[in-house]
Amino acid sequence: MPKLDDLIEELVTGNRILAREGVVDSFGHISVRHPDHPQRYLLSRSRAPDCIEKDDIMEFALDGTPIDAGGRAPYLERYIHGALYEARPDVISVVHNHSESVIPFGVTAAKIKPIFHMGASIGHEVPVWDSHDHFGDTALLVENMAMGRDLAKLIGSGGTALMRGHGATVAGRNIRHAVYVSVYLEVNARLQKQAMDMVADLGEVKYLHPGEVDKVAERTGSYGINRAWENWCRRAGRPLQADPG
Amino acid sequence: MPKLDDLIEELVTGNRILAREGVVDSFGHISVRHPDHPQRYLLSRSRAPDCIEKDDIMEFALDGTPIDAGGRAPYLERYIHGALYEARPDVISVVHNHSESVIPFGVTAAKIKPIFHMGASIGHEVPVWDSHDHFGDTALLVENMAMGRDLAKLIGSGGTALMRGHGATVAGRNIRHAVYVSVYLEVNARLQKQAMDMVADLGEVKYLHPGEVDKVAERTGSYGINRAWENWCRRAGRPLQADPG
Amino acid sequence: MPKLDDLIEELVTGNRILAREGVVDSFGHISVRHPDHPQRYLLSRSRAPDCIEKDDIMEFALDGTPIDAGGRAPYLERYIHGALYEARPDVISVVHNHSESVIPFGVTAAKIKPIFHMGASIGHEVPVWDSHDHFGDTALLVENMAMGRDLAKLIGSGGTALMRGHGATVAGRNIRHAVYVSVYLEVNARLQKQAMDMVADLGEVKYLHPGEVDKVAERTGSYGINRAWENWCRRAGRPLQADPG
Amino acid sequence: MPKLDDLIEELVTGNRILAREGVVDSFGHISVRHPDHPQRYLLSRSRAPDCIEKDDIMEFALDGTPIDAGGRAPYLERYIHGALYEARPDVISVVHNHSESVIPFGVTAAKIKPIFHMGASIGHEVPVWDSHDHFGDTALLVENMAMGRDLAKLIGSGGTALMRGHGATVAGRNIRHAVYVSVYLEVNARLQKQAMDMVADLGEVKYLHPGEVDKVAERTGSYGINRAWENWCRRAGRPLQADPG
Repeated sequence: MPKLDDLIEELVTGNRILAREGVVDSFGHISVRHPDHPQRYLLSRSRAPDCIEKDDIMEFALDGTPIDAGGRAPYLERYIHGALYEARPDVISVVHNHSESVIPFGVTAAKIKPIFHMGASIGHEVPVWDSHDHFGDTALLVENMAMGRDLAKLIGSGGTALMRGHGATVAGRNIRHAVYVSVYLEVNARLQKQAMDMVADLGEVKYLHPGEVDKVAERTGSYGINRAWENWCRRAGRPLQADPG
Repeated sequence: MPKLDDLIEELVTGNRILAREGVVDSFGHISVRHPDHPQRYLLSRSRAPDCIEKDDIMEFALDGTPIDAGGRAPYLERYIHGALYEARPDVISVVHNHSESVIPFGVTAAKIKPIFHMGASIGHEVPVWDSHDHFGDTALLVENMAMGRDLAKLIGSGGTALMRGHGATVAGRNIRHAVYVSVYLEVNARLQKQAMDMVADLGEVKYLHPGEVDKVAERTGSYGINRAWENWCRRAGRPLQADPG
Repeated sequence: MPKLDDLIEELVTGNRILAREGVVDSFGHISVRHPDHPQRYLLSRSRAPDCIEKDDIMEFALDGTPIDAGGRAPYLERYIHGALYEARPDVISVVHNHSESVIPFGVTAAKIKPIFHMGASIGHEVPVWDSHDHFGDTALLVENMAMGRDLAKLIGSGGTALMRGHGATVAGRNIRHAVYVSVYLEVNARLQKQAMDMVADLGEVKYLHPGEVDKVAERTGSYGINRAWENWCRRAGRPLQADPG
Repeated sequence: MPKLDDLIEELVTGNRILAREGVVDSFGHISVRHPDHPQRYLLSRSRAPDCIEKDDIMEFALDGTPIDAGGRAPYLERYIHGALYEARPDVISVVHNHSESVIPFGVTAAKIKPIFHMGASIGHEVPVWDSHDHFGDTALLVENMAMGRDLAKLIGSGGTALMRGHGATVAGRNIRHAVYVSVYLEVNARLQKQAMDMVADLGEVKYLHPGEVDKVAERTGSYGINRAWENWCRRAGRPLQADPG
């Protein structure tokens, strides 16, 4: 079991990498389930990911109640994280972001599907959650557990979802995996859009075969993820820690 | 009421952020209404936003007359600012820019509308002002009060307008708000263009529902804007000041 | 008349700015007519623009003969420069580049035209020179005076031309002007492409009115160009010199 | 014959340049045939190209067996390199990458062809290898010699190939040439996509004439490649070595 201090450092690094790689701008966040208390999770106070320091990391109960706020203001949308940890014991880390290339797929009939092997970890097809279906006109923010649970239900046993007019959520098996999937969800969306532009007169986009998606996903482990993680740490100016697993 | 010195520092920071975030290149400008003399405004001398220092900030009467030029050359288009402050007592800060993704919307029949929650602060639809309608062939610059007032009339009670073959103008309730709306006007235009590319064979873009736009706009305050502001100050290498309000 | 040393520094700065602003990559070049010998011009030895130092600047006769090579290898395409100085006494500086957004316009039937006021300095429409018309299969390089003169003839009294499958050439009235036109030729092409994407179902792109192009072009002088030049010097890490005029 | 130490430094520089120029992200690799033992090649251990140091370079037999691993984990896809060196005595350096603009061409019916003279070194048309044709559902990785040889067969006497849903492979006559072709394969794909967008209503893209491709390719030698190499070394923060030839 990773030591809490190391995991908090890892979470700070995850925030910085998401910023450096263009997955988040001043908004968006990443959490990790508490290693000793599975009914709690760790998430920064309300701050831009590229500014986050160790002391910004707060602890929350699954319903979003801060354990010891100490005057720190939490993110309004922390319910995304708690609802996923509540529904899915296998989920250890959650990313919520507004990465640019995924937004257009949330507001059109186009579905994101893996277009190259690096995109296979997003799953066979990324579903779209529309807050308007069950909650009508809102500020589109997931700011209570009812909305969080509705989103978690749409994600089901998957790992990714778009949110119409808003962004995306990724559920991962640890911090590095959630970051990795978030980065390549953005890249896959960007490349898929370009391929779609080309096929108006040229036929269909050849997405990965379903069996290919499964085979790549099975193979996506520490070997590859840690290669990216080392590079991303360097780019984000963060020390490389041992993989907390 | 903010102290003048702090407000001038804030205005310098606003200039630098607009440059760093790609809203302005060597051209474009941001002003703020004078906190003690509402019939005056503060605006840099004619200089690229990323070069601006405290001593570049000049004071102008609403008609564009410099209060104490001290040999400094003003921007030709300062009338954009004065005309908006004259027409709209609620406007405290104005940005004029040529950010790239908005230009194509000014020269086609496509209208910019909020495509995701971060874009709701631009209003329900961004109108386009065409200087040719009332002024014929010009150098397209707003270089007198007649043109400034014509633009202000088109903006009406709104906060944003495109200018055909030229750029955009944003009216905000303070410097941070005007910068925030300018940044996300550009992002929304960029993403909307991508969504429009996709729908040729796929139906319509789902813009935000009107009630959603209103709800997000109501919620866009210091909580979110200051989160971005801290991040943008860091990126622009500027110290973070207390919010002058 | 500018001192030769200052003009050479200005030429080095022009090279660095073209690189920093993305107009040239490892290829492309900028020259200036010799201030004391109008039948000569100054141009770097064959080197990437962002690497160029003062000692790289060579002197050439209009036919491309080096005055004092001193072992330095010249650019193969220096004939572009000489042919323009030969045909056009009013031309003082020439840029040749492969900036990315102009290439697609050279290989399709689409013509670059000013889409916003910053693009007016490119002229009413940018003509395309196709080396294949008079020279058949070549390596597409302008590597003799016959090709240079053919290109200069196509440019006529204008200031810009595309070269099919190759790039662009800009003729300016001084270094700063040639750089300025080159930067905004690229920006205009990029934005025009986006506008063209949008109009499939939406009607026509509204280019600048011809009278507007003329009025903006008349107004494009030191006031605006030097504002950009100061900013570009800062971005390229070059000292700002007095305008050599 | 270049000294081994210099060649290893050159290989490290090649890795860093590919990263800096956006041809590889955390994945992709470049190898060089061993200068003294043509049945061996040099390739980094499994690491992101921008992190690679001299001590990461390993030696392999053509079948992918490490000569002296020393505890270092090799790339899974090293068979791409060995199979090309086995089939093609003229090939001295191989790049495998997932550069973004080539991916869409691998999954649609569009073929990459030279659109400007800098792209002529990719050959007349870039073929696409589909691992599914002979190997069915896989993780798309070339992880044995059978797959490597199948890819090498598709490349034949050419220098480039796309891999469906995966990336590209480039075979060069030395490190600098392989890097150069990889960079301009990406640029050509990016620009070709833009030209293709434009021609829906405007007719055809004018690709280089076949004779032009040949003439440019004949001329692509140290004169031009070393100009780029110097610039890329500077950008990647690497010392410029003498051309090992």
